[in-house]
Amino acid sequence: MRFQLICLDADDTLWNHESYFQDVARRYRDLLAPFADPAHTDAQLTAAEDRNLHLYGYGVKGFTLSMLETALEIAGDALSSATVKQILGLGRELMRHPVEPLPGVQETLPRLAAQARLVLVTKGDLFHQESKLAASGLGEHFSGVEIVSEKTSETYAKVFARYGAEAAHAVMVGNSLRSDIWPALAAGAFAVLIPHAFEWARERAGTPEDEPRFARLAAFADLPGWLAQR
Amino acid sequence: MRFQLICLDADDTLWNHESYFQDVARRYRDLLAPFADPAHTDAQLTAAEDRNLHLYGYGVKGFTLSMLETALEIAGDALSSATVKQILGLGRELMRHPVEPLPGVQETLPRLAAQARLVLVTKGDLFHQESKLAASGLGEHFSGVEIVSEKTSETYAKVFARYGAEAAHAVMVGNSLRSDIWPALAAGAFAVLIPHAFEWARERAGTPEDEPRFARLAAFADLPGWLAQR
Repeated sequence: MRFQLICLDADDTLWNHESYFQDVARRYRDLLAPFADPAHTDAQLTAAEDRNLHLYGYGVKGFTLSMLETALEIAGDALSSATVKQILGLGRELMRHPVEPLPGVQETLPRLAAQARLVLVTKGDLFHQESKLAASGLGEHFSGVEIVSEKTSETYAKVFARYGAEAAHAVMVGNSLRSDIWPALAAGAFAVLIPHAFEWARERAGTPEDEPRFARLAAFADLPGWLAQR
Repeated sequence: MRFQLICLDADDTLWNHESYFQDVARRYRDLLAPFADPAHTDAQLTAAEDRNLHLYGYGVKGFTLSMLETALEIAGDALSSATVKQILGLGRELMRHPVEPLPGVQETLPRLAAQARLVLVTKGDLFHQESKLAASGLGEHFSGVEIVSEKTSETYAKVFARYGAEAAHAVMVGNSLRSDIWPALAAGAFAVLIPHAFEWARERAGTPEDEPRFARLAAFADLPGWLAQR
């Protein structure tokens, strides 16, 4: 079969993100250690993120605002301006983390681009994700960038239509079962999971092992071969 | 001539935004009045916004982070957690301001939609702008929503192409000379300025009075008539 469109997730598929995020979360817990134990801080922060999702959506800026809100809850009047400054600094650091392609990505993208048009499909802050794609040096391989507020089967159907591709001739590649795999399959497309060492707790879900349009690959470099065999 | 695509700006073209923004900015200056006079606070905040634009892009979340950063600069160690909380609250208020169509918009959109496909083209946070469109109740009239990180002639050319429209048969409508008018004209399209009572200082630029593809209309309701006469 000939693929018409290859959609690729960004964070933790093309470059590392979660490892930087975990590092920032650890240092945030340390900052608040005088006021609460790490597990409590973590639970409060996750609750704030969930509570604010309808307002802030995904992305580092909203995460930074949730870190500040949680610090106010936990430390109350004892929250110093120095700590506020450090939290703002953690957010800025996360905005500016190095964007280095994961192993195999740089060499494999030109081969994929020869098989079908490539589109980046990712959640998060539009401005931040476009900046990261530019910083990665991978932008030239992509026919388009689609920043979406949620990854649902409707979202994927719209992306396929926008690039004139039929779902049955499209594939979504990513590291998240919940965002990249299940909804792409539901839209009628192929879906390839390339697991990343880090996993976002919220993103876990069952694997569609019996689904013929699904595959789990160990390495990004395995993609062109797998696609060529469909 | 028959238009193929009508692109519309969002904030202060379809609904009020700047007035809420000015109100929040005034209350922010009041909060910091014990530490600095209002003009100084304003200048520092504008400087922070400019400095952070490459990192945060446009939008309320980045503006909230710049308000916090500026408060740290101005009040230093004297910044209380209560003030931090109030600043976060100002940001949340701006995220949730009422989205009420400006006079004439609700009645005029169906008439415009009968003339050509409508696309919303706006800067800012993807998630926030989509939420606002949903809250406005105007979403049904639009064939698409394009959230862009900057409004340049290249951006407009891409939007026209994406909807299969020629620039010479497209029009951009908005309240900003710098974002809505000049780059749309440069892309070869028509451009209609509908000035809003409030104007963002940064957005001022000369008016292309001699350009035949440009018009300045006093009211949104004048649009269908003007388009029909091209």
